[in-house]
Amino acid sequence: MLSKNKIKYIRSLEQKKYRKEEKAFLAEGHKLVGDLSGHFECRLVAATSTWLESHPDIKADEIVEVSEEELKKASLLKTPQDVLAVFRIPETDPGTRDIAGSLCLALDDVQDPGNLGTILRTADWFGIRHVFCSIRTADAYNPKTVQATMGALARVRIHYCDLKDLIGTLPDMPVYGTFLDGKNIYGQELTPHGLIVMGNEGKGISQEMEKLVNRRLLIPNYPQGEETSESLNVATATAIVCAEFRRRML
Amino acid sequence: MLSKNKIKYIRSLEQKKYRKEEKAFLAEGHKLVGDLSGHFECRLVAATSTWLESHPDIKADEIVEVSEEELKKASLLKTPQDVLAVFRIPETDPGTRDIAGSLCLALDDVQDPGNLGTILRTADWFGIRHVFCSIRTADAYNPKTVQATMGALARVRIHYCDLKDLIGTLPDMPVYGTFLDGKNIYGQELTPHGLIVMGNEGKGISQEMEKLVNRRLLIPNYPQGEETSESLNVATATAIVCAEFRRRML
Repeated sequence: MLSKNKIKYIRSLEQKKYRKEEKAFLAEGHKLVGDLSGHFECRLVAATSTWLESHPDIKADEIVEVSEEELKKASLLKTPQDVLAVFRIPETDPGTRDIAGSLCLALDDVQDPGNLGTILRTADWFGIRHVFCSIRTADAYNPKTVQATMGALARVRIHYCDLKDLIGTLPDMPVYGTFLDGKNIYGQELTPHGLIVMGNEGKGISQEMEKLVNRRLLIPNYPQGEETSESLNVATATAIVCAEFRRRML
Repeated sequence: MLSKNKIKYIRSLEQKKYRKEEKAFLAEGHKLVGDLSGHFECRLVAATSTWLESHPDIKADEIVEVSEEELKKASLLKTPQDVLAVFRIPETDPGTRDIAGSLCLALDDVQDPGNLGTILRTADWFGIRHVFCSIRTADAYNPKTVQATMGALARVRIHYCDLKDLIGTLPDMPVYGTFLDGKNIYGQELTPHGLIVMGNEGKGISQEMEKLVNRRLLIPNYPQGEETSESLNVATATAIVCAEFRRRML
């Protein structure tokens, strides 16, 4: 049974303040909990008896069997699933050695939790193991983001840092960004390592970061020159760019 | 000034039932209202005096000057902007002649309004002029979808229909779909015309529709064979596929 205090604790993780205090985040659903357990320290699992019976190996500091009614009270989802879990937020060290030889993403104030989650899922699909987030980027451990990642958090490491400082530690690193006046991505050399900067939903890449981009790309619209939306959604643009980088490496 | 009834009317358009009854949808913000006016019959504009002064040519059955306070009461956004407008939902006729020679999308029960909006924005970017939606696909005139389209509704026509029947009227049409056991998209012939089927967020393409797909594609992950997310977000996958089709035509 879940005490009132425990329910309050679980639900408090909707707020960044409490996630930070507790160094913990919430994940819901059998697929997601299954994907994340084993990758993160698990503090609490609250699940129905059916779920617990079919997962006898689950490891957590605390395992609570709950009724569906109780789960509803603790869940942040419209349609609660059979299980929710609280995991420890890992401390990450963006070691530059790992990074210099690989393809990474840098998110320059991406604000929407859903977009961030989708970007992490895309990064996972394309084998991008490090995503750097500016301090003002949405929190990757926001429950909305966690749910949208579909388990990518298990494989993609997220680092919050000053992106300028990061680039400062990576001399000669190709730094890519997409701009409406960039060069057609399909005609450009794309290196198997480098940093791809993606900007804020409304403002795109900040002026400060734009100065640090040394390879300006464009995802061409079609037919060219015709009236169209001003831009693509940031998660969409990230996906097209990542796909094109990886297409060259297959 | 907006009467209580008018505010109720505007806010009622959050619900599909009332949109259907009124054949009307809501759009908010100066960019979106600007993009859509001229393309749709405008029933009502409610805007601040500042906005109205800078848009003397706006045409609508009814134009109401409102204070920011009033706008807040009518708006469905967290941060209301200077203007909202109610437009008429157009009646569309999916004429097969237009379609047979072009590249179109078919959405097989895409459920999330945000995903749908992002897909329409992507379609616009890539010059896809017709998007066919199964009856159970989210409503394109849901305010969340409308806001996510970023004006694409002005250029992309949306048709709700039985997708099986549609394909029945288009013999010899290439019908593409992505599957985890499909063929690497980068190695396949992609025609400049055809129908690209995208499936539901949880279930993918339905069995019924799968039978009608005659070209099975795969967006390869990287590195191949490595553990990764099970799939991409549907709006993300749509973008990668559309980009690849158009890449061939540049």
